[in-house]
Amino acid sequence: MSYIIRPWATKDLKDIMRLIKECAAFHKALDQVKTDPEMLRKDGFGKEATFGCLVAEVPPGQKSKEGHTIIGYQFHYLTYCTWDGPVLFGEDLYVVPDFRGKGVGTSLMNKVAKVALEKGCSQFRFISASWNQPAMDFYSKLGALNVTSTDHWNLIHLDSEHIRKLVEQPQK
Amino acid sequence: MSYIIRPWATKDLKDIMRLIKECAAFHKALDQVKTDPEMLRKDGFGKEATFGCLVAEVPPGQKSKEGHTIIGYQFHYLTYCTWDGPVLFGEDLYVVPDFRGKGVGTSLMNKVAKVALEKGCSQFRFISASWNQPAMDFYSKLGALNVTSTDHWNLIHLDSEHIRKLVEQPQK
Repeated sequence: MSYIIRPWATKDLKDIMRLIKECAAFHKALDQVKTDPEMLRKDGFGKEATFGCLVAEVPPGQKSKEGHTIIGYQFHYLTYCTWDGPVLFGEDLYVVPDFRGKGVGTSLMNKVAKVALEKGCSQFRFISASWNQPAMDFYSKLGALNVTSTDHWNLIHLDSEHIRKLVEQPQK
Repeated sequence: MSYIIRPWATKDLKDIMRLIKECAAFHKALDQVKTDPEMLRKDGFGKEATFGCLVAEVPPGQKSKEGHTIIGYQFHYLTYCTWDGPVLFGEDLYVVPDFRGKGVGTSLMNKVAKVALEKGCSQFRFISASWNQPAMDFYSKLGALNVTSTDHWNLIHLDSEHIRKLVEQPQK
């Protein structure tokens, strides 16, 4: 099998949306997907792009059973740590089941590590579900540290309803 | 006690650095602070600023024992969720000990919630150490959800040594 890893382009929008949904379904969270290709286009391209995306692509002759050539993606954005400075943050890393175990995930991680270096980041951070043991093992083999386990960092969410409540709360 | 919450300015750089170090010391991680005021200036101002910061300021007549008027800060940046779209991410929320319990933290959260709405974010995310019970209780009262507890999201770090190893790894 041959494949290339490259930055995404607008022609990949539908494919990336398909893979985002596949990845969400894997996390039993398909109902939580509110994005659409137009939102991703608006926020992901141009000078003020909020994020970057890498795609894994096979030649047309090696298409997936469903007829797709885009078979994986890695989604990332630049953040900042008050202790460390610029930090690249990874959101999703996903490879479709039929193409797993062939080094595609590692190649995506290799390319996103290059992006991190180019952007002067001393760290690459991401979140992963602790029940996803194959993913945890994969990251661990790359030398990644689970700082939720080691340093008790927990991820906290405030949803739009509570953001709004907080804004409307009378101030002293 | 009176105070205001406002976006930071370059005149606050030294104060913010002082508070970042205080906050890191509270986390027993002062040795991990590699940033300096010049780095924060370069990355935090201008059109390409990577992050924003809010400061809590008291009038000169109400200075802290150590003689400071900047007594708290909240540090944030724009990220992106493949499921939800734009998400504001909070890095630090810190109020110096003498000024706690007076609503400063809530006011900082109120203002950063406004920033989230202005930037079209449907979520505000942040990390907090699970051993910091007062912080966890404070966030919980605001309606925040610990998604490490509920959905098993763990935070993973790849440091610069392993980023470099990944980049240098021979590719297929």
